Amino acid sequence: MRNFNELSPPQRILLGPGPSTVHPRVYRALATPIIGHLDPEFLQIMDELQEMLRWLFGTTNRLTFAVSGTGSAGMEAAFVNIVEPGDTVIVGVNGVFGNRMLDVVRRCGATAVPVEAQWGHRLDIQKIEDALKRNKPVKAVALVHAETSTGVLQPMTDVGALCKKYGALLVADTVTSLAGLPVLVDEWQIDVCYSGTQKCLSCPPGLAPITFSEQALAIAQSRKTKIQSWYLDVTMIANYWSNSSRAYHHTAPISMNYALREALRLVSEEGLKERFRRHARNSAILIENLLQLGLEPLVHEDVRLPCLNAIQVPRHVDEAKIRRRLLQEYNIEIGGGLGNLAGKIWRIGLMGESSSKANVVYLVSALRELLNS
Amino acid sequence: MRNFNELSPPQRILLGPGPSTVHPRVYRALATPIIGHLDPEFLQIMDELQEMLRWLFGTTNRLTFAVSGTGSAGMEAAFVNIVEPGDTVIVGVNGVFGNRMLDVVRRCGATAVPVEAQWGHRLDIQKIEDALKRNKPVKAVALVHAETSTGVLQPMTDVGALCKKYGALLVADTVTSLAGLPVLVDEWQIDVCYSGTQKCLSCPPGLAPITFSEQALAIAQSRKTKIQSWYLDVTMIANYWSNSSRAYHHTAPISMNYALREALRLVSEEGLKERFRRHARNSAILIENLLQLGLEPLVHEDVRLPCLNAIQVPRHVDEAKIRRRLLQEYNIEIGGGLGNLAGKIWRIGLMGESSSKANVVYLVSALRELLNS
Repeated sequence: MRNFNELSPPQRILLGPGPSTVHPRVYRALATPIIGHLDPEFLQIMDELQEMLRWLFGTTNRLTFAVSGTGSAGMEAAFVNIVEPGDTVIVGVNGVFGNRMLDVVRRCGATAVPVEAQWGHRLDIQKIEDALKRNKPVKAVALVHAETSTGVLQPMTDVGALCKKYGALLVADTVTSLAGLPVLVDEWQIDVCYSGTQKCLSCPPGLAPITFSEQALAIAQSRKTKIQSWYLDVTMIANYWSNSSRAYHHTAPISMNYALREALRLVSEEGLKERFRRHARNSAILIENLLQLGLEPLVHEDVRLPCLNAIQVPRHVDEAKIRRRLLQEYNIEIGGGLGNLAGKIWRIGLMGESSSKANVVYLVSALRELLNS
Repeated sequence: MRNFNELSPPQRILLGPGPSTVHPRVYRALATPIIGHLDPEFLQIMDELQEMLRWLFGTTNRLTFAVSGTGSAGMEAAFVNIVEPGDTVIVGVNGVFGNRMLDVVRRCGATAVPVEAQWGHRLDIQKIEDALKRNKPVKAVALVHAETSTGVLQPMTDVGALCKKYGALLVADTVTSLAGLPVLVDEWQIDVCYSGTQKCLSCPPGLAPITFSEQALAIAQSRKTKIQSWYLDVTMIANYWSNSSRAYHHTAPISMNYALREALRLVSEEGLKERFRRHARNSAILIENLLQLGLEPLVHEDVRLPCLNAIQVPRHVDEAKIRRRLLQEYNIEIGGGLGNLAGKIWRIGLMGESSSKANVVYLVSALRELLNS
């Protein structure tokens, strides 16, 4: 085999749709020499992780842990455990990740009923209720709280009660919102809520924090068919993460769990309120500055995500070229549009450590230079 | 939330069934500041990883990459892609991981036919042929090359030809063998081969190297039913890892891929032959020394794994207590038995960086002290 050089990637300012900048303390934790996944000291770290994740999710759910995979594995873990062939699941679709949920639900052998909104807009709760009425019984309603592909925030306050009224579970994708804006699992009556580590948590990608309500866990434990994924089967994973049996399931990604613990400590030190304020503040500065450059946000202020800013690309601008030049000449990564919005928007992530005034000022300056050149 | 201290795990000598000791260079790579998963520089790193993995697996398979999960996710990826409801899969069962394969195959809706051997012994190839004859058509034969639960090596030289004769794919679990002893995917005509990073590769757990033959990929692409896992669907993942489209699938665990690249560089620098010799040598020294302490290996020399040494616990010895004292007083982790062998064996891993004479000498001294105290 030919020789490969020492790893030497460029240094990027990560202002895309994730991953975000990682704090040096998280890198140090990541590189801490590992111990075994059944070592009593590691089991204690798992307990601590669970406690911190419950706090972050705003829940008392026992089954709160980190799936050993990225955010998409969290999505899959949410559905394969509670959905069986023959079930009906209502899925809110106003972007790429709603579509992905549809796909995952169908691979569980269930009927997925899409409730749609235009990309860049939020879902109408009335349409969800209509779908609940038309498709009884509904096993679950699944919504993306923060649509990474469009930058839309889906308000969640009233959906939980609606689901309970119709006997449906509520599943929420908080991949891009957790640790960047409020996620209140218990207050919002969410039954399954998953996220990823590489967005507002500012940890490298590789784990998916998730939480299951007692009701969701009971459904996973009493279903008629076996859970189709062995790897993501929470009835077995619960035995490893729980305090009692600690039965070996699979080897946990030790280093990533170390990193997540440190990322959570940083969130805790900053405090949630201040962290959310910071995300809102830097997004406001960004939008204000971009407006001065003649760049308009895609999403209405009321449902605009502070952590993921979708910006309309002016018609005369070659969006891919600007992104390429930002990367090559300024070492700044931002994202392009996906699906319907490919070529039409830029997606500027201000997530976790990436959400700083310095980054906003630098990006705006770079964009100003590139658009005027 | 209460405050959590800085991460400060103990320093362990990892001589269990995995994870193994990680080289400082791998930790440095792991902690290298990340770039985006669609950054051209990261795509190049993926290309390099593929090239190194092909070399290590002894294959020219295009579809060779690292699954974004631990070894068990690799197992699941192997089966969900090629197995459909109604298929028949023959599974060799002589330990925990054969049983796990049975479970995974059944969750794919297929019929799993176990071919068994006593734990601690290898499978009889004649029995596999008998099962192939009795169960035509057979979609795949699945064998564990290195049974981590028993320390048995399954010879693989003739199984591939046998499978071809009956039109069956060959699936091999090389979680504990890859980079510790020869794995020759093309020569042995293996169609799907998966491993983990935390054993003889001496990388933290979190990725599962895997390779699919053209025939296995064609089966995944032309099956009647949709692949039940979105996350592990190789027909989509291939588009991300391939050279052409680079279509976004899920966010790769960037840091873990950095670490794997460095672990593979270390394997390459040592050379496979010398690495295998080192594993064999240190295992021989261990066994020789343990025999002097009156401790007998479980497995016959002909099929004994050098990287995972199963040792019979003398009847009068409290095996769990010895393991606990090794951990608490000597900071040495070794493993206990699983399933049928719980309480009856110790599992001493000499994998990757853990396979050193220093570790053997220290462990033997510690065991001598504990057994005589």
